[in-house]
Order: sequence, then C-alpha cells, then structure tokens
Amino acid sequence: MAQLTKIILISYFCPRSPVPQESGSFDKILKIQLMSVICVGTMAFDAIETPFGKVDKIVGGSGTYVAYAASNFVTPIQQISIVGYDFPQEEMDEMKKRGVSLEGVEIVKDKKSFFWSGKYHLDMNSRDTLVTDLNVLEDFNPVVPDSYQGADFLILGNLAPDIQMSVIDQLKVRPKLIVMDTMNFWMDIAMDGLKAVLKKVDVLLVNDAEARQLSGELSLVKAAHLIMDMGPKFLIIKKGEHGALLFHQNHVFFAPALPLEEVFDPTGAGDTFAGGFIGHLAKTKDTSFENMKTAIIVGSAMASFCVEKFGPERLKEITKEDIDARLAEFVQLVNFDIDLV
Amino acid sequence: MAQLTKIILISYFCPRSPVPQESGSFDKILKIQLMSVICVGTMAFDAIETPFGKVDKIVGGSGTYVAYAASNFVTPIQQISIVGYDFPQEEMDEMKKRGVSLEGVEIVKDKKSFFWSGKYHLDMNSRDTLVTDLNVLEDFNPVVPDSYQGADFLILGNLAPDIQMSVIDQLKVRPKLIVMDTMNFWMDIAMDGLKAVLKKVDVLLVNDAEARQLSGELSLVKAAHLIMDMGPKFLIIKKGEHGALLFHQNHVFFAPALPLEEVFDPTGAGDTFAGGFIGHLAKTKDTSFENMKTAIIVGSAMASFCVEKFGPERLKEITKEDIDARLAEFVQLVNFDIDLV
Repeated sequence: MAQLTKIILISYFCPRSPVPQESGSFDKILKIQLMSVICVGTMAFDAIETPFGKVDKIVGGSGTYVAYAASNFVTPIQQISIVGYDFPQEEMDEMKKRGVSLEGVEIVKDKKSFFWSGKYHLDMNSRDTLVTDLNVLEDFNPVVPDSYQGADFLILGNLAPDIQMSVIDQLKVRPKLIVMDTMNFWMDIAMDGLKAVLKKVDVLLVNDAEARQLSGELSLVKAAHLIMDMGPKFLIIKKGEHGALLFHQNHVFFAPALPLEEVFDPTGAGDTFAGGFIGHLAKTKDTSFENMKTAIIVGSAMASFCVEKFGPERLKEITKEDIDARLAEFVQLVNFDIDLV
Repeated sequence: MAQLTKIILISYFCPRSPVPQESGSFDKILKIQLMSVICVGTMAFDAIETPFGKVDKIVGGSGTYVAYAASNFVTPIQQISIVGYDFPQEEMDEMKKRGVSLEGVEIVKDKKSFFWSGKYHLDMNSRDTLVTDLNVLEDFNPVVPDSYQGADFLILGNLAPDIQMSVIDQLKVRPKLIVMDTMNFWMDIAMDGLKAVLKKVDVLLVNDAEARQLSGELSLVKAAHLIMDMGPKFLIIKKGEHGALLFHQNHVFFAPALPLEEVFDPTGAGDTFAGGFIGHLAKTKDTSFENMKTAIIVGSAMASFCVEKFGPERLKEITKEDIDARLAEFVQLVNFDIDLV
C-alpha cells in the first residue's frame, strides 16, 4: 500500500464582495455562480460570564456566528432571522458589508431581540444557562424571500424543528446540501419533529452528549451509525476542545481543536465551526467526503478564532492572512510521516 | 508556502527474535545494534470490572503492558520488575519468547505479586480503585543487571519517584533517551522526589488532569510550558479517548485515539501507548520531534488494540499485519488535503 498526500497551502482566497443586487436575470445567474448559502438562525444578545471576564450585553445568536464565519469564504450569505427594535443597525451594516443579505431578517418594531445569558464553569466545557428571554423568537415564522430561491446550500442553525422544516418546505428547488444543527433541548421536547427534519437533511451537527441522547447509544461509533440511519448521510460530532469527528458510511475523520493558551469565551464556537464548514464547501462547490474533511479543518480554524474574545468580536478582526496562518498551524498539528518499509 | 507530506506505509517490520545471549563481547555489540530498551515497571495481577464484564484475576502491571507493546518493534526489552511466587511461569515464558529479558525481574518466593482492583464508570473515562495490595512492591529495590548496562533507551513506568531515580543512578552511561510515566498519587505524596526525577528525564507522560495538577495551571498549553521548565524537553499529555498531545519547545502535535465501536477495558492503555512510543523510537533510532510524532501514532495504534479485550490479552494476539492495518486506519483518520490557491 502506498499513499501520497499533498498538502499545499498557498493562499486561501476570502471574498469580501458586497451582496449582489437581488433582481434581474443576470444577477440570478451571478448568484448561482457564487454558490449562495441560506443561513437560518438567531440574531440575538448574550450576557456571558467566563473565568476570564464578563459581558452584560453582546451581539450573539447562531445565525450571527454562522454568517460572520461563512462570509469569509463565500457570498452572498442569505440570512433568515428575526430581531427586535434593539438590534444594532451598525451590526447589520457590518454584516451587509461582508456580503450577508438581510432581506430575510424580520425586524419587529415593538419587541426586544432574543436574549440568552450563561455562565461557564472553570473548565469551560460546561455552562449554566441563567436567562432565556425568547422575545421576538416567540413569533418567529420565517419567510424565505423570492430572491433566496435557488440557493445551493442551506444551513439550519439550532432552532425549533418545526421552524427548520418550514424553511425546507418553502424552497422550490432542493439545495445541493442541507446542513442542520440542533441541541438536546429539542430532543427533550420535540423529538418527533426533530426526527422528521433529520429525514430531509444531508449533514447533522451535534455534540457528543447529544449524539448519545439522540441514539440512546454510549459508543460514539455506534451512535453515529444509528443517527445516519435516521436520515443524514454525514454526521459531525463536535467535542469542543477535543475536536470533531466526521462520519460517513463506514468512514471516519477526526479534526482536532487547536490547543490554545487561553479559551476566553466558547460562546458561538460551534456555530462558527458550522459557518466555516459550509463556507468552505460552498466556496469549493464540492460536497464529497474528502472535501468535507478539509471543511472541518476550516471550521475548526474559524472556531479557534471565535473563542479568543467575547462574542463574535474576534471574527470581525481577522484577515485572510490570519486564516491562512491558522490553517497552516492545523497542518502542523496533525501532520505526520509514516515512511516505514 | 508549499508543503509536501509523503505518507508511505508499506510494511511495518516487527521483529520477533528471541533475546540474545547476554554474555560475550560479540553479543554486547549485537545488543547495541539492536537498540536495547530498559523497561522498569510493575508485573502484577488485576481484578477489573467494566460495563462489559468482569475478571477476578488477570495479569497486568505497567511493565507488562510496556513490554508486550514495545517488543513488537524492538528487542531486547530489558525488564526490571518484581513478582511474587504466584506470577505465572507461562506469562514469563511468553514474554521471553517475544524478546523480553527477565534477568532484572526479582522473584520473591514467599510473597504474592502486586494486586490492583478497579471498577470503571459507565463512560470508561474514570474509575474507582477498590483494592491495592502492594505485596512484593513494598520491598522493590531494583538492581540493574550488568548485562543491561549500555542500554540506549530507558522507560520508567509509573512507580515511586525514588525507585525511578535509583534506576537512573545505577546506569553507568546515560541512555540516549529517558522516558518517564507518573501519576497524581506521587504528586500528592512525593512531589519533591518527583521533581528531582523530572530534572533527569527527556520525555514525561502524564494525563491531562495530572498535567494540570503538576503545573497548577488549567490551560494545557501553559501547563506544558511550565512542566517542560521542570526538566523534560518533551511532554506527552494523554487524554484517553480524546487522543494525546506532544509538546516540545513551541511545537505541538496532536494524535487522535481511534474511534472504536467498543472500549472493552481501558486498563493498561496508557502503558501500551508508552510501549509503542518507545518501541518505535528505538526501532528507528531517531529521537527527533518529527519522529516522535510518528511514535505517538504508533503508541495510539497499540493502545487501540489494548482496550479491545481484558488485560494484555489482545496484545498477545495481534500480528504485524494487524499493526500495519491499524496504522493505515490512523492515516485515514487524520489525513486531509489543503490545496487551496
């Protein structure tokens, strides 16, 4: 047996073009060429306490993190979300500048944005939720804008399964790839709805505890096979600081998390991972298992930035060169030679 | 930046030669050519309970696991240990057959072998010690046989720091590489002795909790640098099912654990990892950071066999082909292309 693995990392091109105009046939063609991504998720406020500090109110939400991560690799990101009167215009301007279309973001004039507050334990691997104020999220009934139809990729952030299903049902042409995130909360209160959505998606993202809960199986390998029998052809199991596993048929791939001096705030790391993952797939227009391996490394690299500061702050600072350098660190981290005859 | 990583895995040659005769100058030269490894550790009995089953008495001990793993790659393994009248002759015959010299193993005629009993929790990541009968270990005062002098590699299994130090002090020529394992128990009761040994070793093996305890630092990256300041130029932090990290200067390498359908019994996995690690280094006669990366993958592969059955049983069954196939699985597990211009 002989294998030759070529790792060439010259430059990872990160588009920063503005959102194309959404009308006219030429723009539609352009949009398809650009491999548009629909992102459904929350845009919210968080209050976060970690062993390193505390913030009372910072922009957050799964959709926010996915959009900031994915827009480094592909535009437009076609956002579907809901915010209240208090969500900052500057944040929306920043997102637009990065190629995120907000046509699908409903602004409710007389309600506040979704608010979550949590406190991390000393090991940063677990947290307590202190407050969950649904606010606008109580009324979230997403409508897919006409201009979003024909998108190639759909990423469903962690939301009620019925909301996720509603978006899938509204799409006239099935996207090339549907990626779904979910969490234990929905397994507790909406397992049937969750299982119905699972039948419709290609890639599921969960953490290790959620994979065990969803499958009822302690072994992650066995759990993965049971979950793939529920619908998704690909399963990503996120293990936080311990990396992530990608399962597909009888194949498995492992991506480590970068060992960091300090994890400042893990909030949004999973969503940022998802954004980097789908961003890379959309950019390369390749949804093969082999390319998903690279996409998971890209997702891990983006997540490693996210945890360096509170909220999505770090994601707004990084440049194309930062991303390239971080990817090179990942190559070094796992790269080994076996040359033993 | 361009990188080219060549992974060629044709066949991993595993010697199974008997132990060379220990007398005469020709044999001494032969021994040096063979890159002899001194292994200091326990040879004992374990009683183990896991969610998958229970054994009342099975051969165990750190030295046993290291020897079974390392002897796949290099011989002789020059064992230093102590056993009671009850340690099975067949086990010693099996070890000799695999190239393990037992000249340094003291047999105490009127005492029992060291005995440990433990029960694993459902997640297999933690265990309770139920019984520790030191027996012969109370009197362990290792004497390095003359025939072991001049060994190129020394691996100090988890033992009292004073015993580890005594072996180092008896060696007339410092080995090319000294690898040391230890545990939290010695940090609790013999920290000064432990720190004295740390000054004398090249590679330290600990788990993540022990790295944090030894350094007083929660961040593993910071902990690693503090520990390397205590003496070892290389630090391996074992994270069980989450893999292992190798630190050296400002470099870090990550080796995953193979995701297995079932972990039957984790006992001895860390020692088996250590045995595969030093076995590969001794076989290749190369103690560079780059080669240590491969050695950690080899150690992880050996550990992945160990956990498949109770005690060292699986280690006695596997062939050279099994090891090659497992190493190929590791290449697949972490192998990714970044080819993005």
